[in-house]
Formats: sequence, C-alpha cells, structure tokens
Amino acid sequence: MTSRAQHSALANAIRSLAMDGVEKAKSGHPGLPMGAADVATVLFTRFLKFDPAAPNWPDRDRFVLSAGHGSMLLYALLYLTGVEGVTLDELKRFRQLGSATPGHPEYGHTPGVETTTGPLGQGIATAVGMALGERLMAAEFGGDLVDHHTYVLASDGDLMEGVSQEAIALAGHLRLSRLIVLFDDNGISIDGPLSLSDSVDQVKRFEAAGWRAERVDGHDPDAIAAAIERARASDRPSMIACKTIIGYGAPKRAGTSKAHGEALGAEELAGAKAALGLPAEPFALPEGVLEAWRQAATRSRGEREGWAKRLGAMDAGARAEFERRVAGRPPAGLDEAIDALKARLAAEPQTIATRKASEVALETITVAMPELVLGSADLTPSNNTKTKNLAVVGPGEFAGRYIHYGIREHGMAAAMNGLALHGGVVPAGATFMVFTDYCRPAIRLAALMGVRVVYVMTHDSIGLGEDGPTHQPVEHLAALRAIPNLNVFRPADPVETAECWQLALAAERTPGLLALTRQNLVPVRTSHSKANLCAQGAYELAPAEGGKAKVSLFASGSEVEIAMAARQILASRGVAARVVSVPCMELFAAQPASVRAAVIGDAPVKVAVEAGIRMGWDWIVGADGGFVGMSGFGASAPYKELYAHFGITAEAVAEQATSRL
Amino acid sequence: MTSRAQHSALANAIRSLAMDGVEKAKSGHPGLPMGAADVATVLFTRFLKFDPAAPNWPDRDRFVLSAGHGSMLLYALLYLTGVEGVTLDELKRFRQLGSATPGHPEYGHTPGVETTTGPLGQGIATAVGMALGERLMAAEFGGDLVDHHTYVLASDGDLMEGVSQEAIALAGHLRLSRLIVLFDDNGISIDGPLSLSDSVDQVKRFEAAGWRAERVDGHDPDAIAAAIERARASDRPSMIACKTIIGYGAPKRAGTSKAHGEALGAEELAGAKAALGLPAEPFALPEGVLEAWRQAATRSRGEREGWAKRLGAMDAGARAEFERRVAGRPPAGLDEAIDALKARLAAEPQTIATRKASEVALETITVAMPELVLGSADLTPSNNTKTKNLAVVGPGEFAGRYIHYGIREHGMAAAMNGLALHGGVVPAGATFMVFTDYCRPAIRLAALMGVRVVYVMTHDSIGLGEDGPTHQPVEHLAALRAIPNLNVFRPADPVETAECWQLALAAERTPGLLALTRQNLVPVRTSHSKANLCAQGAYELAPAEGGKAKVSLFASGSEVEIAMAARQILASRGVAARVVSVPCMELFAAQPASVRAAVIGDAPVKVAVEAGIRMGWDWIVGADGGFVGMSGFGASAPYKELYAHFGITAEAVAEQATSRL
Repeated sequence: MTSRAQHSALANAIRSLAMDGVEKAKSGHPGLPMGAADVATVLFTRFLKFDPAAPNWPDRDRFVLSAGHGSMLLYALLYLTGVEGVTLDELKRFRQLGSATPGHPEYGHTPGVETTTGPLGQGIATAVGMALGERLMAAEFGGDLVDHHTYVLASDGDLMEGVSQEAIALAGHLRLSRLIVLFDDNGISIDGPLSLSDSVDQVKRFEAAGWRAERVDGHDPDAIAAAIERARASDRPSMIACKTIIGYGAPKRAGTSKAHGEALGAEELAGAKAALGLPAEPFALPEGVLEAWRQAATRSRGEREGWAKRLGAMDAGARAEFERRVAGRPPAGLDEAIDALKARLAAEPQTIATRKASEVALETITVAMPELVLGSADLTPSNNTKTKNLAVVGPGEFAGRYIHYGIREHGMAAAMNGLALHGGVVPAGATFMVFTDYCRPAIRLAALMGVRVVYVMTHDSIGLGEDGPTHQPVEHLAALRAIPNLNVFRPADPVETAECWQLALAAERTPGLLALTRQNLVPVRTSHSKANLCAQGAYELAPAEGGKAKVSLFASGSEVEIAMAARQILASRGVAARVVSVPCMELFAAQPASVRAAVIGDAPVKVAVEAGIRMGWDWIVGADGGFVGMSGFGASAPYKELYAHFGITAEAVAEQATSRL
Repeated sequence: MTSRAQHSALANAIRSLAMDGVEKAKSGHPGLPMGAADVATVLFTRFLKFDPAAPNWPDRDRFVLSAGHGSMLLYALLYLTGVEGVTLDELKRFRQLGSATPGHPEYGHTPGVETTTGPLGQGIATAVGMALGERLMAAEFGGDLVDHHTYVLASDGDLMEGVSQEAIALAGHLRLSRLIVLFDDNGISIDGPLSLSDSVDQVKRFEAAGWRAERVDGHDPDAIAAAIERARASDRPSMIACKTIIGYGAPKRAGTSKAHGEALGAEELAGAKAALGLPAEPFALPEGVLEAWRQAATRSRGEREGWAKRLGAMDAGARAEFERRVAGRPPAGLDEAIDALKARLAAEPQTIATRKASEVALETITVAMPELVLGSADLTPSNNTKTKNLAVVGPGEFAGRYIHYGIREHGMAAAMNGLALHGGVVPAGATFMVFTDYCRPAIRLAALMGVRVVYVMTHDSIGLGEDGPTHQPVEHLAALRAIPNLNVFRPADPVETAECWQLALAAERTPGLLALTRQNLVPVRTSHSKANLCAQGAYELAPAEGGKAKVSLFASGSEVEIAMAARQILASRGVAARVVSVPCMELFAAQPASVRAAVIGDAPVKVAVEAGIRMGWDWIVGADGGFVGMSGFGASAPYKELYAHFGITAEAVAEQATSRL
C-alpha cells in the first residue's frame, strides 16, 4: 500500500465507525468526524505524542476536540489506537445510558478524553490553559520532564464564540508556541452555509492576535503534515485552517448542513461506505486496518520509556515533588501553615475587608503551596490576588505564578480549567463577583468535570457601593449555589477567609468560589480554633445568652456582623438569640441530618440575613422564616447608605425577629 | 478664538467637570473622560445628530459610551449640551443615592443615556443591535423617517471581552455601515500598561471581521473629524483607533493606570486645571464655555424640525403605524389573533413539543405583530423560530425579519438589547436553554434596563436526551428565576405556550424567557379559556376529585403531564389530589397574598415536580414539602430513559405524596 492509500484506509476507518455509531444511536453528528478524519489521522499517526497504554502519561501531548459534538471522531480514535475501556462494544453503545461514549466527550468518564467539550468555544479556551500549564511546569521542572504540545480541533462555531477570541488573544500575547489549532474549516453551520452568518477572515484574525496562521487542503495528508511541521517550528501559537468537506464521502449530504447533526440514514450510509471502499456491515472495518492503527499507535512508546528513565534518574526530592504536583496532592506543610495563620489572625483581630483577608491568607498559602498560580481579569489592585512573592507570567516568560488575564473573565475561567486539567498547578483567578455571569459556562464545566479551580470573587454585594447596580451582585450567590458540585464560600472575617481558602484548596474534585467583600468587616472569630469550623458549612458562632434561644439568626459574609449586632439588640430587649455563620451552604447541606438539625436549632423564630436575594435560604429558615436582604437590583451610592436604604441593618433583623415571636 | 482653541475650550470643560465630579464623590473614573474629551467633543460638536431639547427624538444618532465607567464624560456632555434633568447640581451629586448621575450610565434613569453600560463589551454589542434596528426600520419606513448613525466610544476592555468580538463579527457580516466605533486607544488598563495582558493588533482584527479601520491621533480634532468623515462614507462599519492619553492633563498621573479609577486628589487636580487653563474653583468653567457648548448643541435642531415636517406630511395610516411602533404599543389585532389560536389549539389538541407549539404560535403572532424580529444563534431548525413568512436579513439586505445570529449567543442577547432600545422592533432570539449561561450578562442588563426582549430557550431539561450533561439545563430555571425583573415562562402545552408568548410580548418593561421542550408533551389545556390563565403565574389545572384535596401537586412545563398522571395514580389509591400548573413563578409571586394562598391551597401534602433542581420551589411547597426533580448533572441517553433513571416519574411523585400523608 502506498503511504497515501494507507492514510486513506486509516482515515476511512474513523469515518466508518462514526457513521455506524451515529446510525445505531439514531442520534449524533457524523459530519465532523467524516470531514476531519484526514486531519485527525495525520495528527495521530505522525505527530501526537500519545501512548494508548498510558493515556494519562504526564508528558503526553494533549488533544482537545473543541468541537465536542464530533465525539465519534475521538471515540473512534481511542478505540482504533487501543485505549483500554473504549471498546467496539462501547462504540455500539454510543449515546446510551452508562456507556463510555456519551453524546459529548466527558472528562473523567472516558479514558483519553482530556476535557469535557460540547459548549462551543470552551475546548479551545481550555486548551490555552493546558498549553500555559505546560510552559509553567516546564519552567519549573525543565524540558526533560515537561515538553509537549497541545493540539486542538476546532470548528467554525468554536471560533465564533467570544470566549475563544478571549483565549486566542491571551495565547497570542503569551506566545504559547506549543499550542496548535487545527480549524475544521468546512464552511457549514447548522442553519446552512456559514455565509448566512459569518464573513470573518479567520487567518487574518488569528494573525491580528499574534498567531501564525495559514490555510491548507484538509483532505491532503502531506499538506496537513507540512503545515503542522511549520506550526511546530514557529515561536507563536499556530492556527491551520484545514479546508474540509463536512460529511466527506456521503453521496448527497457531503458539504451540506444535513451532514452535521443527524444519522445519515440507511441509503446515504450505504452510499458513503461504497464511495469510501468500506464494508457494508455495521462496525466492520477492512482487513488489517485495526492492526495498522494499533501499530501506528505504538509510535510514542519509546518516548514514554525514555521519559520514565529520566524521571527515575532524578534526585529523589525533586522527583517526589514532581510526582506530588502531578498527582494533585496538597503539600505537606499547608495545613500547619494555615493553622498558624489562623492563630495569629484570632490573636490580632483586624477590621479589614475579606478581599484583604484573602490577600493575607495568600501571603501564607502561596509560600506553602508552590503550585498555586494566581491571576486576575485586570482587577489585580481590587481583587488583592497578587502577593509580594509572585512573579508575573509574560510573553515567552513562564517562570512566574501570576497571570494578568486581561479583561477576559470568561477566557480566564476556561483557561483555569485547562491549567487544572493539565495538572501540576492549581489555578485561582479573580474578578468582581458580578462578573461570575461572564464566566458561568466555564464555571459550570469545572463543576461538571470536578476539577480544582478557585474563583476569587470580590466586591460581592451592594457593599461595592458607588459603582452601582451593574456591578452589584444581587442574585449571584443564589445562582452560583444552584450549580451542582460547586462550593460557594462567603467568609465573614479573616479567620473564616483562611478556613475557606483551606477548604477550597483541599477539595480535589470540586471547584470553589470565594465571595469576598470590598468593605471592611468587624472580625467575629477572635479565639483560635484548630478545627476548621467552616468545614461544616455552618456553625453556631454565638450562642444564646440568658436562656434558651428564642431566635436563631443565620448569616454569611458581611452580614454576620449585622446578625451579631442584631443579637445584641435582641438581648437588650430580653430576647435570647443565637447566631449561626453560614460560610458554605453546600458543605452544610452535605452534613448528616443530625448535624444540620443541631446547627439550625429549634428556636421558634429563624431569620436569615444576606445582602442578596432570599432564594436558597428557605431550607434553613423555613418558607415562613424571616429574611433580610435584597429583592431587586442595587443602586449607586456609598455602601453604608445602601445598606440603610435597602434595610439591611441590625435593627431590621431584630424587628423581623421580634415581629415573629 | 481659533477653531482649535474653541475646540480645546469645549473639550477641557468636559475634563474639568469630570475631574470635579469624581473628586467630590471621592470615587469614580477621571481617566477616560480626560483622555477621550477631544474625541467626544469632535463627535458632539461636528457630527452627532442630537437635539438636547428632544433627547428621545426617534431619528437621533445614538451615542453609546461602552466604557461606562467613564460616565462623567457622558454626564458632562448631557449637562453641557443642556439636556433637561442633568444639571450642575446633579453633577455635584455624582454617585450619590438617587442622583441623576449614578456610577455607571443607567438607561431609563438619566435622560439622554441610550443604554446601561459598565459591564465591559456590552455597550458595543448593544450598539450593533441599535445599528441593525436602524437599518430594519429604514428598510420598512424609508430614509425620510429613519436615517441615523450609531456611534460608540469603546475602551481596550470592551474590545478584550468576547461578547464584543461576537458582535463585531456580526456587524461586519451584515455590513452595518452606519455603525462607527471610536476606540479610546490609551494603552492602559487597571493592572498597568496594556502590554501586561494584550498584544492584539486591533485595526487588523476589525478588518478581519469586515470592518473599515484606521488609526488617528485622538487629541487632534481635525484628524478625528476627517476619520469620522471617511467612516461615514464607508460601506462597512468603521473603527477608528484614537490614540489618547488617559487622564490627559494630569501632571503626574496622565498616561498611567493611576488615572483610571480614583479621584485625582487635590494636588494633582490643581495641577491638571492649571495645565489646561481651567479655573481652580470646583465645577466652575471659563467664561463663555457653557454658552458655547449650548450654542453648538443647537446644530441638529433644523434637522429635527425637517424630520417632524416629513412625519407630519405622511399618510395618516403609515404615520400612525410608525408612531405605534416607535412607542412600543402592541398592535390592535394581536390579542384577538392569539385568542383565536388558543381556541383552535384547545379544540384540536396536539401532542407536540412546546418548541413546536412555539412555532405554531409564531405562525400567528408574526403575522399579527409586524415588529417582531426573530432569530437564532445557529439553531434555527431546533429552536423552531423561523416561520414561513419571515425573510432573512443578510449583508446589506435589511428587508427581513429573521436574523441568523451565528454561534454567538452572548452577542445575540446583547444585540437584542440594542434592537429593543432602538425601538420600533421587538426582538426574540433563540438558542438551547443551557446556553442562557452564555447570554447571562446581557439578559441581566435587559432585566435591569427593563426592555422587552424575548428569549426562546428550547431543549429545557434532561428531556434533551442524548446530547448529555453539557447540553442539559439542570440549575438554569433556578438561576434565571433568580434574576430580578425577568419573567421565566415554562409552558406545558400548546395553549399555555400561546398564552406565555402573549404575556412576554405584553410586558413592555420586563424581558421574558420561554423555556421550551425538545420532546413531545401530552396537551393539558383542551377546553378553551378566553382568559389568559398563565397571567396569574400559577393556576389550578385539575381539581381534586372525590373529596377535598389531600395532595396538591405543582409542576411546570414538561412535568405537568407527569403531575397529571400522578394525580390519576393517587386517585386509583383513593387519594384526592389536585394539580397546579406553574408556568411563571414571577407572575405568581406578584399576585395578592389571597390569590397565592388560594392557588397553593391547604391540602396537607404538597409536592412539586420539575426536571431541574429544587431551589426556588420551597416558597410554594414549603421547606418540608415534597420535590421530584434533579439534584445533580444529567447524562447522555434517550430522554425517556433519563426520566426513569433520575426518577422523575408519575410513580415517584405519587410515592412522595403518599409517603407524606
């Protein structure tokens, strides 16, 4: 067989499995796998450093199928290369409950899937984080251990999404030259020809963002290979626009939007198989093709063995640190350092904002945890994320731990997913709390994938003050608590802030979000507790005095001091009240019923106070319980006036309580 | 005075007021107004078609301050030109509670403010919608009545945000040649020099998106004017990168990030005033400058009078229609048409998806309401938004009512804000419900501004099926219900869908979101009611039979049929149960307490069923009430299997009810 014929046989195997998988499921997307099979075959057989026997080998090249709807392309590749767990039977169970082959690729579910994709733009933006992670780790551990590329297969849709443009600009700025995007330039979208909605010159737009970019015939394997060679030689990230035909091989649907998102149907499928020289029988491949794929997939075995030898030859301490970092285990001294910090904070209480308290905590944590990589979406002086010991990451300069993400909240959040997925680093990035709305699709993916990303969200209420309602979160605590598998922390003072940081960093499978104030708060934790009280999610901060509690007051963050003041007012009126701090509802909800009941208590009156909407508090205070907070958007004014204007005061809390007695 | 000296005097008046306003508030952003004062002065004194005596004149040019943090620029301009309500006293109350001059410009709050800005990227993306609205109206009513430009002042931050790139690509594609973006190219961001985070060639990137783009000296009034002339002559949208010095005039802070977001302080302010030849006294202007501004602002009076004459000379019917459209009044026949449709739908019940029911409703509504402009973010065949009578809007072709927004959910939502703000059209745009996350910042702005935008969000639960958890909304109903002033509709069948469309279109100051199913539903409204039952937000769909209700079942959308089936199961067990349909929680919450109590009822057991999370239901069923729904992310499988797998079944609802009896 000529090399060209060999290539076609390998590529057509992908097409065949993709068509059959979608046909059997009667659901899915055959168009992309058929169109991009040549590009993927060139990448996997000639370039990708990937050993199917060890799909998680740390120094592997990453491959991100940003166009996640073309999942059968990836599943076919994982099966053809021989990744354990992705069997032919699983391909036959495409899109069925519990299969290894869900509709879109899911990280942590299918071996060899580097990130969950499907929501367009996320894959390419996540890949930017992976490519950055590689450079950060290489700067720290050297090219003997960390020396790989990140490849992305992206669609028109990926490039139309704003998040991708944010990430592309960041990658171009930082000169992430090991990032190579293969753009499946098929000119077709769901609504029809791309010309219905788009006229962008993609090559020029990438160049404007500092990338190397070129166009090739996406069905010419040698042209694709030559372009990838040029990309690998560039000192810039590269985009290769591969002109392809969607649904390549399908007699009637090829090149049309009909090929995109539904099974071909028996007749079209038969026609495609005949045109491509494939056996008609479902899931059958021409003789020798599977073996040829498996053989091709042994390409990187030697590289992996060489890498393992280099790792083995390392100094034991350095090796242990590398392995700890890659495994994602927290450093030995972290908890002790935080304990010592807590003791100091309790002994020397400070009236500071929790964003400042976070900075104080980070001064300790960044020393104790070298893998923590911080950054901000251009609000560094407001988010208090840049501690003194952090060097800045810049264009081609990766010996640093602080990233100026630019005014790109969504790109930052997606890149942080990539940093976490790459491994070896733990990303924490910051913006104003209200702009969690901009990050939300990437936050959701972090939660769905279960990766450790920390969001530092400051200016978390009307306490932001004069910037007004566009910048004041009102519904955001509720909306974030709604996301499954996301821990939303809202600490009340420096000690709680340190505890919440500790919890966020310890949760290896759950992203954490810290909601922090702009304004100063009176400290409430002034005696040291070695136990992390926030770990329970909610705890009694102040017991009732002078008898059994008639009132339980619940609050988070900046409103805890209001609840404490209300307790004093109530005491002065002879009403015994206790205060429960609720720094993390998710952790509280996960407690045993007995713990929850004990914390909630049996006082006849329950009132919650939080400078946000009520939604999400009823399970604690009851649907008939009291609530002091917001019921609409905020306003522009100094924050103390706003608290008074919106009635979020100790007096109002006390009134709500007494009116219910 | 030379024309150049005159220009400087006018521009320095802006600088002076901006410095003083921020200084008095001890809060705000002097840097942009000082840097962009020359650009704004050229625009307002030589180009902008704007009559301060009639700031809402329909054929005015729109000016959008996308960099909303520079609000003092806009407030100064509105005061200097003489817009009623923006007085010197109000400038002195900058950022104070209840003033006309909040921290960021707020639409509906301050006369002359065209849109609320502050969250970066939104202004420019909204302006794309305004420019599109102008072309749509011009295509319909002619250039005699509709013939204006949309100008945007945008910052680096605006252009770094992904949403702006989506909108820019859309504007370039559609060739919105009357859109002119003045980019305040000051090279400074909050973290420091822009070079910390960005290397984009903005001119080249705009050109790649089909724009005309050039660079000018942003402090040379004649160069700015010449560039605007060229932009107005172009057949493409134009971007003019105006190289400016942030904080122009401030002796130490000019050109640095220190000028951006805080008061200058007494010394720096005094130095700036001296350098600019301004009186030291706060809020004082050199003699004659206010008069010169007021004189300059009379420029467009004649144009407005000419326009009013042309309007007056029109055929009475056409004029009435134009005025109705601009006033935003619904057409006379709309309600009757929907009534007739409802009668037909009740008489001929169809088992169809509510996305299909929405299409059926739109076949009627698009005929009855010519101002309704539909579109989709490249999911037209799935969202069912393109009815047969809608022509497509294309590059330079505006005689249509259907917009292929491309895979740009956020850009679509922001552009829809602009269409609504422009007036004369009512925008409704579609994507999958899960991608409301992508649109969220723009949806929030629509709610904050109180504009009539309709979101058609299909595939609203695990009922989406095989595409899996990345595409299945779980927390989205709760997260959207959390947004103040947004009506979230989830109709259960074709009649409810028609009713919800009617309510969404009638709410002139509240955006509406329709959550619609992919899967077919059994119709539940099979007898005609002329009253819009959904208007109450929740209503008893099926009463208890065989005695007083022991169980009340509450459901929305696709789960109403499950509640109805559970009622039957309970009846077979001798348990009288009623079913309440809850198509819109916000409208229900707005009912008088007596109505709410009557609908919720006094059955001892309450159970809600919705294929989303529980959050938001407790106020109806109580914190101890039953709930059948989701508690985590979905999965990839045929939808009926998913409903069984996650236990969202009539049997499970009946079990929850009986276990509580």
